[in-house]
Amino acid sequence: MVTNDSLNTLHDAVDKGLSTEIEQQVTELHPSEIADTLESLPSKQRAELWNLEVVDQAEVLPYLNDTVQFELIQDMPTATVARAIESMDTDDAVDMLQNLPDEVVEASLQEVDLEHYRRLRQVLFYPENSAGGLMNTDILIVRTEMTVKMVLRYLRRFDKLPERTDLLMVVDSNNDYRGVLFITELLTSSPKYVVEQIMSTNIEAIPADLSDNEVALLFEQRDLLSAPVVDKQGILLGRITIDDVVDVIRAQADHNLMGRAGLDEEDDMFAPILKTTRNRAIWLGVNLITAFLAAYVIGLFEATLEQMVALAVLMPIVASMGGIAGSQTLTIMIRGMALNQISNTNIPWLLKKELAVAILNGIIWAIVVAVIAIIWFNNVILGLIIGTALIINLFVAAFAGVLIPVLLKRLSIDPALAASVTLTTITDVIGFGTLLGLATILLKVS
Amino acid sequence: MVTNDSLNTLHDAVDKGLSTEIEQQVTELHPSEIADTLESLPSKQRAELWNLEVVDQAEVLPYLNDTVQFELIQDMPTATVARAIESMDTDDAVDMLQNLPDEVVEASLQEVDLEHYRRLRQVLFYPENSAGGLMNTDILIVRTEMTVKMVLRYLRRFDKLPERTDLLMVVDSNNDYRGVLFITELLTSSPKYVVEQIMSTNIEAIPADLSDNEVALLFEQRDLLSAPVVDKQGILLGRITIDDVVDVIRAQADHNLMGRAGLDEEDDMFAPILKTTRNRAIWLGVNLITAFLAAYVIGLFEATLEQMVALAVLMPIVASMGGIAGSQTLTIMIRGMALNQISNTNIPWLLKKELAVAILNGIIWAIVVAVIAIIWFNNVILGLIIGTALIINLFVAAFAGVLIPVLLKRLSIDPALAASVTLTTITDVIGFGTLLGLATILLKVS
Repeated sequence: MVTNDSLNTLHDAVDKGLSTEIEQQVTELHPSEIADTLESLPSKQRAELWNLEVVDQAEVLPYLNDTVQFELIQDMPTATVARAIESMDTDDAVDMLQNLPDEVVEASLQEVDLEHYRRLRQVLFYPENSAGGLMNTDILIVRTEMTVKMVLRYLRRFDKLPERTDLLMVVDSNNDYRGVLFITELLTSSPKYVVEQIMSTNIEAIPADLSDNEVALLFEQRDLLSAPVVDKQGILLGRITIDDVVDVIRAQADHNLMGRAGLDEEDDMFAPILKTTRNRAIWLGVNLITAFLAAYVIGLFEATLEQMVALAVLMPIVASMGGIAGSQTLTIMIRGMALNQISNTNIPWLLKKELAVAILNGIIWAIVVAVIAIIWFNNVILGLIIGTALIINLFVAAFAGVLIPVLLKRLSIDPALAASVTLTTITDVIGFGTLLGLATILLKVS
Repeated sequence: MVTNDSLNTLHDAVDKGLSTEIEQQVTELHPSEIADTLESLPSKQRAELWNLEVVDQAEVLPYLNDTVQFELIQDMPTATVARAIESMDTDDAVDMLQNLPDEVVEASLQEVDLEHYRRLRQVLFYPENSAGGLMNTDILIVRTEMTVKMVLRYLRRFDKLPERTDLLMVVDSNNDYRGVLFITELLTSSPKYVVEQIMSTNIEAIPADLSDNEVALLFEQRDLLSAPVVDKQGILLGRITIDDVVDVIRAQADHNLMGRAGLDEEDDMFAPILKTTRNRAIWLGVNLITAFLAAYVIGLFEATLEQMVALAVLMPIVASMGGIAGSQTLTIMIRGMALNQISNTNIPWLLKKELAVAILNGIIWAIVVAVIAIIWFNNVILGLIIGTALIINLFVAAFAGVLIPVLLKRLSIDPALAASVTLTTITDVIGFGTLLGLATILLKVS
């Protein structure tokens, strides 16, 4: 496997252009490890490594992330792309095709042999993020009335069974899906038994239009290795295997992590500087609007700030504590949603709990902040003001942390992308607004 | 599977105490789905559901997260815990035991039968987050010189093969690990072949002390379903299966996501309010120190702020843009580290790229912010000051975003936990410091 040490040595060799050493190291790597290494290199070095004889491009392609895959495939002749497609699993090939411009897809498909073409078309029909888009069509089918002996003889006729086959699909004489026959069951059963006696009927077939995240949850909950996929009429289409589900889980996790910073999970670590600048600029722009909104709120209280400059000093504390508390609540919500643990019924329970926690933490930290403020600026009223503002902001933050992702989801906006920036806007505006607003009122009174 | 609808209906039934309806619904759920439902309920309702006759506690236990598992197990009699342990996979049982207080573990182990006891002890020897801690000891072993026919006869003697068996381990006459025999290979081979002819030797055995994250990467890269585990002497200890690897991947992802908000990935969504308050308070306290550090920096420039209150209005913009840009860089780094894509050699390349992006984005947004500031406050110098401060802060943010996780890792501090708050401290201090510092200098000059 690629350890940090071996990556270092390889990077070093690439950096110094030691081609013999590179070739020797690359031959020892698994295609997926070559893909990882390619992703960890800047464009120039990446192209050098990619074009080495020892790199089997068709083997490496399916392991690359979308952006890097796209970058490297653009310089490949269509015929080579077609050969690569034929050598891939159907789902990997489809995954790649869905990521390429239509004209490249059509050109490549024309050079693919007919058998692969048919299989690809069937899977290409389904969206990338659905069970249909994840499936492979390489299923082994047996009938309910076959004996174990017949099944074993049938299997022995194959040169090689499809990779990661842990079960056979069972259909009845109408070709309707009836259940699965685990290979481990087959091996321990007497040759005289018929399939119907030893098959498992508790594995529900997955509808082809189920979302990939639901498929992943199902695999995780049931500890499945593979599962059948059927269309709306219940006709068997293919199977999904755990290795593709692992990719879905990783992608979903990356999305939740990277979405928060406005990044795309398929982004290339070494994308060209201008492209990265543009992608990041959009997110910075969105956040600048938030920041100016906060500045606008502060601007409403310029007179108060002139009267008491200590407010300017303490102002970021209230906003930042609200942001932190809110993001704790928000993170709990986003994760609960990813695990399908949030329902209409438990949202009120969660809200009640989060608000209670917010009030308690609000009181604790309000006292700490107030005491420090009173000592620092020798001003009791200032302490009371900032303490009150802190409690209010933590309360609002908990409220927003629970409800923002729920509302965004209802509006079909991805909470992983938009929730964090919405929350910060609220905690900033409320944080600055309450502190300066309370100060304005109390300073007028006194 | 648990859909949002079914979760709603079940929550509703629990809420209204409709016990017949609850029981009816629960019988239709997989143990893992009951576990998910338990996690999504507040303590009182959770205990009610847990103690229903229809809930098979031993079946559900392994699927619960550590905190909830611990909460529920405390009220179970030791004998029941022991029965549950016996019915679990070794790795699940060990996972649970490692999470319980020593006296509970010892008490339960005394009631477990000898065979299970021996197996558990062997796995308990290894840390939870190592290959040894993840493994199961239920391996099937064959010898290189056996024929396919002999292997098939050997397997048929079992009532049932261990779940998720996709391969048999192959040893030579010295009992040394030699390779694996895939069951799919066994099924397509002539009965006359010997194991040595058809076994696969390209699956390296995993050392028992490899970290669980490295195990997960290896499974992902090689698309493995299971893999052998050996000790330092190369003696076969057990096997790791993909379902446990999926749990590791999920846990690592949760850790990266939740660590940023100072949360533990095993936290219970419905933990008691006081416990949650305490856990969250620690993180809020750490961030309060950061916030006061920023306030202290602002306090150094009170005189400047009094002279020009517009600075107080614009001040949060510079700090917040730095925080956002820095967190983009940081997220790229944390994810690259999780995928083992960061080495000493490519850190300088990444740093160069991130700094270039920061300068470009700094210039773009500095111009935007400067123009708005000049128009808003009708003050050209203010515009120049804030633009310059923004460029400096984005540059520092990129620098910190790349180097903080690297330094933390070298100090053996978990970047997922500490990097974000360290970064914010730096971007706040530099953001406020440069804006107010530049203003102080330029206002004195003018």
